[in-house]
Amino acid sequence: MSSTLGTLFLVPNTLGDDGRAEQLPWVLPSETIAKTSQLTHWIVEDAKTARAFLKAVDGVSPLACTIQEMQMSEWRGLARNAKYADGVKPIDLLKPLMAGKDMGLMSEAGVPGVADPGAELVLAAHKLGAKVKPLVGPSSILLGLMASGLNGQRFAFQGYIPHDAQDRVAKLKQLEVESRKLQQTQIWIETPYRNTAMLMACLNT
Amino acid sequence: MSSTLGTLFLVPNTLGDDGRAEQLPWVLPSETIAKTSQLTHWIVEDAKTARAFLKAVDGVSPLACTIQEMQMSEWRGLARNAKYADGVKPIDLLKPLMAGKDMGLMSEAGVPGVADPGAELVLAAHKLGAKVKPLVGPSSILLGLMASGLNGQRFAFQGYIPHDAQDRVAKLKQLEVESRKLQQTQIWIETPYRNTAMLMACLNT
Repeated sequence: MSSTLGTLFLVPNTLGDDGRAEQLPWVLPSETIAKTSQLTHWIVEDAKTARAFLKAVDGVSPLACTIQEMQMSEWRGLARNAKYADGVKPIDLLKPLMAGKDMGLMSEAGVPGVADPGAELVLAAHKLGAKVKPLVGPSSILLGLMASGLNGQRFAFQGYIPHDAQDRVAKLKQLEVESRKLQQTQIWIETPYRNTAMLMACLNT
Repeated sequence: MSSTLGTLFLVPNTLGDDGRAEQLPWVLPSETIAKTSQLTHWIVEDAKTARAFLKAVDGVSPLACTIQEMQMSEWRGLARNAKYADGVKPIDLLKPLMAGKDMGLMSEAGVPGVADPGAELVLAAHKLGAKVKPLVGPSSILLGLMASGLNGQRFAFQGYIPHDAQDRVAKLKQLEVESRKLQQTQIWIETPYRNTAMLMACLNT
């Protein structure tokens, strides 16, 4: 049965909205770009950014069909999907895979499934017995860790930490203790407009 | 002063020894390959594998000089370096950077500084005030996490876990508790020849 299933390709996106076309040769291997251009069935975090990315890919490696002809579903993770598309399950989005079509999974920026939606779809694909192929691309978490000079032998990624001022201070203190005890670099993400507040909290804590 | 300093480029390597030339278009963006080919001063985990990688790069983008003409130092991390090159400090290896030369930092496989030596050199470069530029490439940790279908919103990388049978069981039990308590995917690495023993220990624990 698994011989008739398509493959789920995990397609990295550029980092951020600006200069997608300029970023491509710096952040995606040529075969990642070539494979991406051949996919016609997609599950994406956000259709608008996915189309902008595919337009940039088309400039390097012509797409197999027009973006309008592609089949594209959105998936924003279990919690967020429940709010805007009640009742849609990961397996429902994988029907093309079951029909033997290769599919691409892509988030708004960086790699799918890491600090972004997608893991539930990968798990559902594994349960079907389909092949899952992660393609190489940029991850701000990995690039940040490489460039930091901090311990890359042991590290933890925490996602977002609380933005309430008191909760944030409590969390920062807890992470500092864990960091010392476990000899572990702590990584988290923050939205640009809260970066200054976050840095001030780090300095003051 | 910092205007006279070179830039430290963090150069990803292929994953494993086999088929470096075949891997390149799948794992390195074209501008990563082009930039790599122009670097003539290197700090590498292992000179032999670095030369094999650069030979593969030369096949795609001609090197700026012969591999023999390059300046190449080895760095295997603070603990391992102390054993085989007593007294060599990170700063000693960054002299070309101080003389205004761009340098490349590369490990045996994957990205430098993450589950591989290099972080001490990055830290030393920051202390000099030099620019540090991480280039995009493959990381088995990131690709494994993407393809796993496990939680990529919170995860921890543990490096190697003990290979003594009793210690290993104790560590696996501890990681399972942490995984549940923190809702955190646990990632660790193992050498190929111990993979079977590790998997059996996981199944039996």
